[in-house]
Amino acid sequence: MDIQELSERILAGERRALARAITLVESQREDHRVQAAGLLERLRGHGREALRIGLSGTPGVGKSTFIEAFGCMLTGLGMKVAVLAVDPSSARSGGSILGDKTRMERLARDPGAFIRPSPSQSQLGGVARRTREAIDLCEAAGFDVVLIETVGVGQSETMVAEMSDLFLLLLAPAGGDELQGVKRGIMEMADILLVNKADGDLKTTAMRTCADYAGALRLLRKRPQDPEGFPKALTVSAIEENGLEKAWEEMQALAQWRRAQGHFTARRAAQARYWFEAEVREALLARLKREPVKGAMTALAGQVENGDLSATAAADQLMREYLMV
Amino acid sequence: MDIQELSERILAGERRALARAITLVESQREDHRVQAAGLLERLRGHGREALRIGLSGTPGVGKSTFIEAFGCMLTGLGMKVAVLAVDPSSARSGGSILGDKTRMERLARDPGAFIRPSPSQSQLGGVARRTREAIDLCEAAGFDVVLIETVGVGQSETMVAEMSDLFLLLLAPAGGDELQGVKRGIMEMADILLVNKADGDLKTTAMRTCADYAGALRLLRKRPQDPEGFPKALTVSAIEENGLEKAWEEMQALAQWRRAQGHFTARRAAQARYWFEAEVREALLARLKREPVKGAMTALAGQVENGDLSATAAADQLMREYLMV
Repeated sequence: MDIQELSERILAGERRALARAITLVESQREDHRVQAAGLLERLRGHGREALRIGLSGTPGVGKSTFIEAFGCMLTGLGMKVAVLAVDPSSARSGGSILGDKTRMERLARDPGAFIRPSPSQSQLGGVARRTREAIDLCEAAGFDVVLIETVGVGQSETMVAEMSDLFLLLLAPAGGDELQGVKRGIMEMADILLVNKADGDLKTTAMRTCADYAGALRLLRKRPQDPEGFPKALTVSAIEENGLEKAWEEMQALAQWRRAQGHFTARRAAQARYWFEAEVREALLARLKREPVKGAMTALAGQVENGDLSATAAADQLMREYLMV
Repeated sequence: MDIQELSERILAGERRALARAITLVESQREDHRVQAAGLLERLRGHGREALRIGLSGTPGVGKSTFIEAFGCMLTGLGMKVAVLAVDPSSARSGGSILGDKTRMERLARDPGAFIRPSPSQSQLGGVARRTREAIDLCEAAGFDVVLIETVGVGQSETMVAEMSDLFLLLLAPAGGDELQGVKRGIMEMADILLVNKADGDLKTTAMRTCADYAGALRLLRKRPQDPEGFPKALTVSAIEENGLEKAWEEMQALAQWRRAQGHFTARRAAQARYWFEAEVREALLARLKREPVKGAMTALAGQVENGDLSATAAADQLMREYLMV
């Protein structure tokens, strides 16, 4: 299938074409990269502006169950929902934990949904670009909501927050002492905290936890991109499918307010700039991994380790001789 | 004073010459940088190998009081002690909090001691190089112990740990619930945890806190560079000057073991390599802040923000046209 045909099928909303295009942007082969760039350029400005929702939470908090229930609720409202995963562990383990279709069987079978597991064996840097390109492809394919799932590891949460319009943090019910476990930085990125498992024996604990988080959120300084009352904490039960409509209402209210105030567009512009600068830095630093710089750097590092040369003198020499500064 | 005279006075252990040399390495003026490089090259391999002790702790934990008491104990044993400070807040506030001589009056007057406050208005990157160079100068001036003080902010703690032979974490007595406050990453960098304020009403709490930390440390995997029993937790009272000899004994035991096993030299070599690589990355990224790259980057960022160009396409264009990749 050539790029023109692929782009037409994506614009027609064909899920198989979308999957194929994501495989293309995930490829590291040089010819695939060229094709992917051409495809993305062709699709640029087409399709719809989806609501990009980032979702993080530690393992065991019920992310898959939540996404399944939440996603099915959205498709039930007639929306098209894509689920992408950013899995920092897959780079090491080679396997994917997130976006596992067998853990979201109902959503995986839903014709209004598209689930894409995280690609394996990739660097977090590469993952960022590929995920952003996959989001663009989902928008071109006419999806209304793109959920980007990750786990509670600092770097990947920041990454997902930097490509989302809204950022949700899924939390487990916990004793008051454990609240400290949520890092302040993550708390500050979140727009809505969802305390899951507000069902059965844990319901009371979940409500207390939610109140505790709400109290903690009130201590944070109000952000200019938030209306009154945000960020906020809510309880949900993914298993009993309780609180999902309320959570969706809050997400819509926040998104609408940000759209009306211009924050929505401003945030996307700032994110695009962030990624541009990140890609430049990454491309520049990649030179250190290529010959002849790599070999020269190894040799100089040896002299530095032996104490024959100071770190500063060696760095100056490398820059002068190999990196034209 | 020319560089030769300055170097001779430093090697003779003159504190005023040392202070002057540190001012030189702290200067951002190009001619001063050249002089500083010449001075450091001249002093290279002279002087003694000091024990470099990194010390961190949150504000209020009693760092100044501890350093004063510990430093005076060491000078009392006939040693020469230098105190340097890495203050991440000074970059913003323009003022120095750490290494404040008025808070260590007794040590500041001690002829065996040298205290240098953190330089103000500097980037953390520049602070790293200047602090490493100040350490080298202290070694050239014949100091036996160089204490490098910082506060509990992630990045500066990592920096200080990467230029220290031993890394100490000073902690306050606390209820069991608060133990979580110490980040795992910091815990893993520390060689010895010192629970301060083991005096008066807080003595019992300090001992319990110390036992709690000792328990937490046992859960960490043993590091190859540690003998049995390390990292360990001890109580001290800086005010009553209790536990300081014991802490010093433990530091010496650890340093001696590492010297005997070759870990001491290996760590310094690895640190030198780390700083070499960090300086190369920093120098490379500095090109983005200089014309014509800076202007081109701003223009492209504008197009990216407007949505006229994707982040990836803009980054590719910048690299191709300005950074020869």
